[in-house]
Amino acid sequence: MNKIEHIGIAVKNLTNSIDIYQKLLNTDCYKTELVASEAVNTAFFKTGDNKIELLAATSPDSAIAKFLEKKGEGIHHIAFAVDDILEEMERLRNEGFVLLNDQPKKGADNKMICFVHPKETNGVLMELCQEIKWV
Amino acid sequence: MNKIEHIGIAVKNLTNSIDIYQKLLNTDCYKTELVASEAVNTAFFKTGDNKIELLAATSPDSAIAKFLEKKGEGIHHIAFAVDDILEEMERLRNEGFVLLNDQPKKGADNKMICFVHPKETNGVLMELCQEIKWV
Repeated sequence: MNKIEHIGIAVKNLTNSIDIYQKLLNTDCYKTELVASEAVNTAFFKTGDNKIELLAATSPDSAIAKFLEKKGEGIHHIAFAVDDILEEMERLRNEGFVLLNDQPKKGADNKMICFVHPKETNGVLMELCQEIKWV
Repeated sequence: MNKIEHIGIAVKNLTNSIDIYQKLLNTDCYKTELVASEAVNTAFFKTGDNKIELLAATSPDSAIAKFLEKKGEGIHHIAFAVDDILEEMERLRNEGFVLLNDQPKKGADNKMICFVHPKETNGVLMELCQEIKWV
C-alpha cells in the first residue's frame, strides 16, 4: 500500500454534492466520469496528494444505491494506491483478508481495482487501485 | 484545506485492530496516545503523506462508544490539515457549514481541532486540524 489514493463518498445527488464539496474543500471539481459497468456517476476533487471521489447511483441496482438505502450518505470506501495489484492481492489473501474480486476489474479514473471485504477491516471497505499504463 | 491529515476509524478493541491494520497496511503502528479529555485511546499508522488513526473508547460516555453502539465499527471522520484553523472555521461558517465547536480544542497528535457537522457534508464528519507549534 503506497498511499491513500482517494476516499469514496456515496451521495444522493451528484450536482448538489459537487457544489457542497467545492465550498467545503475550497477547490473545484476537476473531473466527472460515468462508470457504466458499476452504474455510478463520479466526481473528483484534489486535496493535497489525495482525491475525494463522490459517487452517485445511476440505477437502483447499483452497489451505491444499495449502500444509500441501507446506510444513507457517507463514506463508502478508502482506496489505496499499489504498484502491483496482483502481488498486493496475494499478500492480503495470505494475511487472511477476504477479497471481493478474484481478479482486478476496471474502475474509474483509469485504474484497475479490487475491494477488500469490510468484515476483516473493522467495517471499512478498502479498495486497492493500480494506475493503468499504456506502453 | 491543505490535505487529508488522517482518517479516523472507530474500533472496539484497539490491540486486535492494531494487529489487523499492521497486516493490512504492511506498516507498523508508530504511536499510541490516550486522549483523556475525549475518553479515547488512539493508534497511528503512516500511509504515504497521510495517517490512519484507530479510535477506541475508554468510557461508555465517549463519543466513540456512542458511535460504535449506533453504527458499529467503521470510518468515524476525515481530518484535513489547515494552516490557520480560526480562519478556516470562519470561511466554513460563511459558506453555511455548521461547526460542532465554537473554538478549537486540543486533539490527539499535538493538534488543535474543530469538527464540521455531517448534516451539511453528505453524512461525513469532517475535522479541521492545525499542528500546535511551540515558539
